[in-house]
Amino acid sequence: MSVRAGLGIDAGGTYAKILAVSGAGRTLGRSRVATLPKRGPRAFVDRVSRAVRALERRMGREAGTACLAIAGEVDAEAGRLRHSPNIRPFEGYPLRGSLSKALRRPVTMHNDANMAAWACFAVELKRRFPNVLTVTLGTGVGGGIVLGGRLHTGSTGSAGEFGHARIRYEGGDPCGCGARGCLESCAGKYGIERLARRLLLERPGLRTPLRAAASKGPLEPERIARAAARGDALAREVWRGFGRALGAGLVSLVYIFNPDAIVLTGGVSRAGALFLPETRRVMRADTWERPFTHVRLKVSERTDLGVLGAALYSLEGPA
Amino acid sequence: MSVRAGLGIDAGGTYAKILAVSGAGRTLGRSRVATLPKRGPRAFVDRVSRAVRALERRMGREAGTACLAIAGEVDAEAGRLRHSPNIRPFEGYPLRGSLSKALRRPVTMHNDANMAAWACFAVELKRRFPNVLTVTLGTGVGGGIVLGGRLHTGSTGSAGEFGHARIRYEGGDPCGCGARGCLESCAGKYGIERLARRLLLERPGLRTPLRAAASKGPLEPERIARAAARGDALAREVWRGFGRALGAGLVSLVYIFNPDAIVLTGGVSRAGALFLPETRRVMRADTWERPFTHVRLKVSERTDLGVLGAALYSLEGPA
Repeated sequence: MSVRAGLGIDAGGTYAKILAVSGAGRTLGRSRVATLPKRGPRAFVDRVSRAVRALERRMGREAGTACLAIAGEVDAEAGRLRHSPNIRPFEGYPLRGSLSKALRRPVTMHNDANMAAWACFAVELKRRFPNVLTVTLGTGVGGGIVLGGRLHTGSTGSAGEFGHARIRYEGGDPCGCGARGCLESCAGKYGIERLARRLLLERPGLRTPLRAAASKGPLEPERIARAAARGDALAREVWRGFGRALGAGLVSLVYIFNPDAIVLTGGVSRAGALFLPETRRVMRADTWERPFTHVRLKVSERTDLGVLGAALYSLEGPA
Repeated sequence: MSVRAGLGIDAGGTYAKILAVSGAGRTLGRSRVATLPKRGPRAFVDRVSRAVRALERRMGREAGTACLAIAGEVDAEAGRLRHSPNIRPFEGYPLRGSLSKALRRPVTMHNDANMAAWACFAVELKRRFPNVLTVTLGTGVGGGIVLGGRLHTGSTGSAGEFGHARIRYEGGDPCGCGARGCLESCAGKYGIERLARRLLLERPGLRTPLRAAASKGPLEPERIARAAARGDALAREVWRGFGRALGAGLVSLVYIFNPDAIVLTGGVSRAGALFLPETRRVMRADTWERPFTHVRLKVSERTDLGVLGAALYSLEGPA
């Protein structure tokens, strides 16, 4: 009972995962509650704290510290969500303070991609490399930064927003953020769909089941990945295009950080076999050899990096 | 005599500056020797160590530690220059070890832009901000990174190469590094000249003294800056275009690092009045407010940042 334990809570738009880990990273218990953004942040805090108490009763012990990972722009100092497209009703509410009071323990609060980056550094790569970047590929493109074995969350909590680095300055496609030419405008979910629709227009003679699908509704990355896996030429071209755009983004990150490793995570990273050859080709093409031969590029198989990173990070130093 | 002193040596293609500072950053003495790359690294080490001994005789004391800042890709661990277009004959030579032996003291060796970044953090901004980026604007575009008050030189010593971040993925102009679409291909010396020549072609009716100058030889940034300062419309357009490209690069850095401050240095930064309004306009246009309202953008007036940073950094912890 004397061994330290950490508690992670990872709140996305639909669910909040809860995980208790030992200091060594062993799972002590798990739970999950619905986020239900529309019911508001107070109800969410109640739901989470009830689930945590139930989990701790089952575990027969309390976790000493907790960390809340959440999808959006986090004001870590104030413990509030500044901006979150998927959990808008929680914006501005003193989530950290409220949760800390309900759980009767110190709580820290961070962006979910930053916490995923901590898990990549601490678990995926077993703390073997001091300089690790994590790039999350999902609806949007995000990320996190560990340098010298320390998480860098930025001066106002927004570091690692790799998706809004400009890879197509002047003439780029519009991004969800309102700007143009962001990496996310090519490598985010809507960028992938846009590329597929553009190729469908450019190759009117090419037969592909995606053409019929595109006329009926949105083209999800998963559908394009399934088509590519079946050998569909257009779908394969989409993923090569995605790989090139991602490669341009990663080349920039290598020049900027000169990291030991870049770990790709998120739903879209599951299509790695389809885009990684092109991404690696782009990265190998660069003339500065050393940073590029040094860096490892890998895809994480884990789907619980956010909550795992939060649980582990709650054990790092003072809250 | 008991106060610690640090010694910085900043070797560029033409000169090596030498500076001794107190722990508080006060200048204790200066010297300078020719780099003379063609005479080889051993002669350079001899020349530097003679100059250091003469300087220390004048100062009446020895500096305890030294740091060599040098223009190029530095293998900080091995103490060698991996690659340097301007000091090619020194590549691969054990410069640090040789200098350490000649000076009979520990020597560290770092890229000059990284040392300039340390001076920006420690002197220009007086250690008031933990997260500071430095962007050097000269023949090329480089930089350095201080996060959490610590210099990040990268896993193999190449961090902060902001000039090779891709801002024009697909269809960008060629860069000196062999790739296309690097920030440097727009914001480096040759990028500025290329933009000027492109505008001269696109505006055949526009009268500007730059047209005659362009037919005679290279168009240096300084000449374009002088023309712009006199109100030349084409030259002013060049600097606005430069400001937009730089803005795209800085927007990316703000999303990636969420820094407290970005300091611009190097010869081209002297033209700040001509390009900063456009750079700031680009940075203000972004929709993520907090990181952009937080970050300070300033131009350093100092021209000795590399040697100053090296001298101060030699005093930071173990060699």
